[in-house]
Amino acid sequence: MSCYNSTVIPAPIDKVWAKLRDFHDMSWASGVIESCDAGNKLPGTQIGAKRVLNNAFHETLLALDDQNRVVRYSIDDGPEAVSSDNVSGYVGEVQVFPVTDGNQTFVLWTSSWEDSGGGVAEFCDPIYKALLDALKKHFS
Amino acid sequence: MSCYNSTVIPAPIDKVWAKLRDFHDMSWASGVIESCDAGNKLPGTQIGAKRVLNNAFHETLLALDDQNRVVRYSIDDGPEAVSSDNVSGYVGEVQVFPVTDGNQTFVLWTSSWEDSGGGVAEFCDPIYKALLDALKKHFS
Amino acid sequence: MSCYNSTVIPAPIDKVWAKLRDFHDMSWASGVIESCDAGNKLPGTQIGAKRVLNNAFHETLLALDDQNRVVRYSIDDGPEAVSSDNVSGYVGEVQVFPVTDGNQTFVLWTSSWEDSGGGVAEFCDPIYKALLDALKKHFS
Amino acid sequence: MSCYNSTVIPAPIDKVWAKLRDFHDMSWASGVIESCDAGNKLPGTQIGAKRVLNNAFHETLLALDDQNRVVRYSIDDGPEAVSSDNVSGYVGEVQVFPVTDGNQTFVLWTSSWEDSGGGVAEFCDPIYKALLDALKKHFS
Repeated sequence: MSCYNSTVIPAPIDKVWAKLRDFHDMSWASGVIESCDAGNKLPGTQIGAKRVLNNAFHETLLALDDQNRVVRYSIDDGPEAVSSDNVSGYVGEVQVFPVTDGNQTFVLWTSSWEDSGGGVAEFCDPIYKALLDALKKHFS
Repeated sequence: MSCYNSTVIPAPIDKVWAKLRDFHDMSWASGVIESCDAGNKLPGTQIGAKRVLNNAFHETLLALDDQNRVVRYSIDDGPEAVSSDNVSGYVGEVQVFPVTDGNQTFVLWTSSWEDSGGGVAEFCDPIYKALLDALKKHFS
Repeated sequence: MSCYNSTVIPAPIDKVWAKLRDFHDMSWASGVIESCDAGNKLPGTQIGAKRVLNNAFHETLLALDDQNRVVRYSIDDGPEAVSSDNVSGYVGEVQVFPVTDGNQTFVLWTSSWEDSGGGVAEFCDPIYKALLDALKKHFS
Repeated sequence: MSCYNSTVIPAPIDKVWAKLRDFHDMSWASGVIESCDAGNKLPGTQIGAKRVLNNAFHETLLALDDQNRVVRYSIDDGPEAVSSDNVSGYVGEVQVFPVTDGNQTFVLWTSSWEDSGGGVAEFCDPIYKALLDALKKHFS
């Protein structure tokens, strides 16, 4: 079970990655993420950092890779289909790649989960689409 | 030591991957690859298949992945900087990803090698750029 | 949802990989796999090759990688928990790594699936354990 | 150009990973690493953390992955063959996997580099062997 969403951002990869690599910076996601609060004292590039998005999504940074430009996190609890009652083992991943023939950036946002009571992809896919749209707008 | 080239193709991923997955089909590369001859009797989706491009590049299929859409091959011998006298352990890789917000395809063509007498990236990068341009033209 | 089983085989990696890379050769799995019939005419190193194990498990080769020594396949239909009625998107993967300080081989057999009516890991894990035991016995 | 060294550690993966994931903790490497000094103020699980080993090897944490249990770092400068005069783009990676049939841990220590004046593998391989031996001793 998984989600797969991707887009091309009209900005060089270094600028896009600089924004995406900090788990505590959701400033690029205006209109989608209204609040991003720290859930512990770890900075946003330290593995184990926790954040709470929109007072609802509780997430933990699992992996950060400055070489391959990957960030991976768990959703530990959240609203509706991503509540801990409905889903287990939810992991999201963002990876970016340079589009070399146009100085642009390919952004891939995927997620998967171990088990669920259903409805997870239907709930999450529109959120990822909105996030990628916001990222595109931020860099346009 | 490595090459990294990428582009976005205005065609759905299934069509692009159907072309790229067959090691013996370089029909999409017109203007760059003039001839593609089989180097052994294995079909182009069998690991170990060999091909000779432009009577000069001798290549072997190392890996094919229909799930993640990856093809990987070695250059065993070739002209100038990719001759077996100058370079060892040369491996090229093509991977494609769907761009979901536009029904397009991100194509990533990378290569690396173990050791060389120099000049490999300078020789290969323009070829990969020409190949990606030809692929784009083929699907436009 | 996934299975994860692994072992160390007291044999050099080239011998182990030579056995595992051929999708139509289950001769090493005696006592577990009684029959391995081809499901189409493709050889066991050609992507798309099909096999039927024990007249019950219908599988397709998805990926073969002679460089990183990975084979990946789908279970398209099978008995009980892996029937196409109960599970969808079932993919198994075998990867081997050299244990350099002892000329041995680490074998990793994992699987995952998109959706199921349950019971898949409980059904599959003992099979993978039996397969890894058979492989160990074969090379001991 | 690359190094590849691996071993099996007679300890469960959680204990081994807990030691290896902290970039500032080389306490397990006694006899090989005499000193491990912080090169900046970042903790050992924050990407970008710097360390100096044996007053000689200057390294930066590039990636940490608590899900797949990978740590990756660069050697920015060091003695002899890994001096910045002789090698560029040097990256080391440690990954651990559970050996499920014996509650042990497979440890894979690899490295690669972009370019060099030679002698890098010859210099580094014995160090990795010594490190893996020390790790084994630590957990025996």
